[in-house]
Amino acid sequence: MGKALVEQLRAAVGPEHVLVGEAAAEYGHDATFMEAAPLCAVRPADTEEVAVVVRACAAERVPIVARGSGTSLTGGSVPLAGGVVLSLERLTRLEVDGPNTVAVAGAGVITAELDRAAGEHGLMYPPDPASIELSTIGGNVACNSGGLRCVKYGVTADYVIGLTVVLADGQVLRLGGKLRKRSSGYRLMQLFVGSEGTLGIVTEVIVKLVPLPRYRATAMVGFATLEAAGTAVARALAAGHFPTAIEILDRASMELVRDRLPPGFEPALEAVLIVEQDGNDEEFVQVDLMRMVEVLDGADNRIAQSSAERDKLWDARRSYGKVLMAMPHNFFAEDVAVPIAEIPEMIRRVHEMARRTGLRIVTVGHAGDGNLHPTILFEDAQRPLVSHAAAQIFRDALELGGSVSAEHGLGALKRDYAEREHGPLAMGLMRRMKALLDPEGLLNPHKVFPEQPADDEFLNQMPGWIPDPERHRRRAELGL
Amino acid sequence: MGKALVEQLRAAVGPEHVLVGEAAAEYGHDATFMEAAPLCAVRPADTEEVAVVVRACAAERVPIVARGSGTSLTGGSVPLAGGVVLSLERLTRLEVDGPNTVAVAGAGVITAELDRAAGEHGLMYPPDPASIELSTIGGNVACNSGGLRCVKYGVTADYVIGLTVVLADGQVLRLGGKLRKRSSGYRLMQLFVGSEGTLGIVTEVIVKLVPLPRYRATAMVGFATLEAAGTAVARALAAGHFPTAIEILDRASMELVRDRLPPGFEPALEAVLIVEQDGNDEEFVQVDLMRMVEVLDGADNRIAQSSAERDKLWDARRSYGKVLMAMPHNFFAEDVAVPIAEIPEMIRRVHEMARRTGLRIVTVGHAGDGNLHPTILFEDAQRPLVSHAAAQIFRDALELGGSVSAEHGLGALKRDYAEREHGPLAMGLMRRMKALLDPEGLLNPHKVFPEQPADDEFLNQMPGWIPDPERHRRRAELGL
Repeated sequence: MGKALVEQLRAAVGPEHVLVGEAAAEYGHDATFMEAAPLCAVRPADTEEVAVVVRACAAERVPIVARGSGTSLTGGSVPLAGGVVLSLERLTRLEVDGPNTVAVAGAGVITAELDRAAGEHGLMYPPDPASIELSTIGGNVACNSGGLRCVKYGVTADYVIGLTVVLADGQVLRLGGKLRKRSSGYRLMQLFVGSEGTLGIVTEVIVKLVPLPRYRATAMVGFATLEAAGTAVARALAAGHFPTAIEILDRASMELVRDRLPPGFEPALEAVLIVEQDGNDEEFVQVDLMRMVEVLDGADNRIAQSSAERDKLWDARRSYGKVLMAMPHNFFAEDVAVPIAEIPEMIRRVHEMARRTGLRIVTVGHAGDGNLHPTILFEDAQRPLVSHAAAQIFRDALELGGSVSAEHGLGALKRDYAEREHGPLAMGLMRRMKALLDPEGLLNPHKVFPEQPADDEFLNQMPGWIPDPERHRRRAELGL
Repeated sequence: MGKALVEQLRAAVGPEHVLVGEAAAEYGHDATFMEAAPLCAVRPADTEEVAVVVRACAAERVPIVARGSGTSLTGGSVPLAGGVVLSLERLTRLEVDGPNTVAVAGAGVITAELDRAAGEHGLMYPPDPASIELSTIGGNVACNSGGLRCVKYGVTADYVIGLTVVLADGQVLRLGGKLRKRSSGYRLMQLFVGSEGTLGIVTEVIVKLVPLPRYRATAMVGFATLEAAGTAVARALAAGHFPTAIEILDRASMELVRDRLPPGFEPALEAVLIVEQDGNDEEFVQVDLMRMVEVLDGADNRIAQSSAERDKLWDARRSYGKVLMAMPHNFFAEDVAVPIAEIPEMIRRVHEMARRTGLRIVTVGHAGDGNLHPTILFEDAQRPLVSHAAAQIFRDALELGGSVSAEHGLGALKRDYAEREHGPLAMGLMRRMKALLDPEGLLNPHKVFPEQPADDEFLNQMPGWIPDPERHRRRAELGL
């Protein structure tokens, strides 16, 4: 059966675009450490070819895993049930429609390229996941990706105004258009955003664009306590400051990137915020930032006076992944969210757990929207502890009214926490939506929906979760 | 059966909160001219009472129409199949959580009160439908309401981060929370937003808030042609200006409010834009606006130098409803959207149709997001023409890649256009979502889904569509 299907797919998309064996194995892993061998990897040219591939697979009841660049940090694009990996890398048509301030992009367009193309029209595509130079707009839609600029601008879902989706039976569904505002019918589009390829395969995306701010201003502000950093964020917002980004580094993170902090920056601090403002006038942006820094009222601060100084301030945050990679430790990075006032408490719990377990945990995050990335550094002997620690982080986030995933999706890694987060009623509805749109369960199996009770061994039970230092290089390239 | 149910509801919510006869009839109409008599109107106190009411109705298979303030312009809250009108007016609990920059509001909270309460914490709830002083946050969620500030800030859906929904069987579904960012599970919440009470009854809403801008600056810019106004909008955005609002008035509208335009404002213009900028510094906001006016490059302009002057510039737009009401004509107002570059073409088509039919049609709109409100003024003898004209407006909007409803919902008035807008595949999925969540079809029957082919007689076939000048007073109060 498998062989006949592969032949059929070769006829559909051209033999050079159906990969098997070792070539296909390259499509069997993502930026986690999970991997699985697909029957084959297929690279269709356009929506119509995607539909042909899906119909062929559906006829044979063969699973289909859609894939962008494979930068998922949750095993999201690993073909755990085998089947066909449907790579959307050739769907790279890109049109920026300046007069309508929208862009139409094939699912395989790299998000940074979309943003740069918008920039040529004086416009911007705001969501900027750390993986922006590698990940695709299709993958971003699948995971409802966030990024640094989300504080002011929101996440991927807030920009999607049109989608072309190939359904599980191969029908092509076209939703929305170049329209910025609509109050007509159910918001089906939003059901596909964040559904991680389990409800349909997004082949084309229409996004709203916003005016490109011409200038940016950046500052680093240090705080003696986590609480002081937390209340400072709320105070700045309540004073009318609407920053582009508010990144937080805890003390452990500051130690990790100590030599990249500004010279003379007060060393005895518990937290650092990097704040950025953007706008259309160089002076106004700088003055607004300076006032915001005043309101933040930190124990030490630096305000960049040039773009070189801006880059230096960002370096502590941006080099984070590379520094982690260079460590003698292995590491495991997480992505949780809490209501923004709970950030100090969440970080405190992470610290307490680090003390208790002896694990080194460094935490950075997007403080403006409550998104934290605690990263567990560990040596081989500590390996059994990691799963327990990650489970505790998830429990704490949920206890504080948060989520086990802020911007990475659930994938395979966190699927077992879904019901704990959403409750049985919502989960039941999600299962019924899945049954409605993919009755045979062919689209990205073993993702999103829980398969066993979430417990402290969740990582250890995950096939191939064990970190591989080689793979870290790729993660580091993603900017973590 | 009806009588037993009414007794049951009296026991559930207290006899004084179950209205019948004339008192119930008050709940049988909205801001259109449609009306229908409900079996009774019920005013539950909280989510639990709503659930009891819904269970009682479900057991008897009696339709339920949820209702906020009844400001719908599409018959959305008219109980066309009779049954129980479930008024959420008593669900007015309101909590602004400053540190988390969110608000928790009962469905019956008036949206302007929510915004003012946020303001006391230095925060803002941006979506501002014209009905903001009358309509409820629950109604705004049901219709995914927009408003003037949407250009910069987006619509209701962009702010909803938590919902409590009573499902058709009376189960209480709690979605989301005080969390600003989440990439976990399907976005069920967004399915209820804009579903006009047909999928579940929203009883509580959690919304994100943003920093309250301290200052505003306003200008009026006139253009010799519609094209010049249209390209000016795109040019300003591409130059990096991100205004709060960009309202457009066509020549017919300008004539309607002629004596409210600034003295000496060039009379021979085809379009006027009212642009507003907001921000945290009085001078910066004013300077940014002035630069934007320069980029807009109009034939005449006025930049307000004081808040009194700002009010005067806005008066032309804000008094629009009152002026319409004072006319000897009857009128019928519409709400369509097109991609923003199509605004000149859409208005031109409206003008051409006005010339052809002899109807007077005035058009205002939110030019920054393509949302236009053509309003047909007519005398009794012209009545048969109105339905044809409205149908042509819908056809034109769809032909230009737009929608028959930008911010008012489909309700009963526009339901027959839904399939033409969304196509059979999307419509089929919407029907299946409806069947999944409301298998008995008890929630707000005869809304959203088409019941007959959309044709030029759609209005004439709508029971009670015929405008009633008395009712216009209410519409005018809504600010249109």
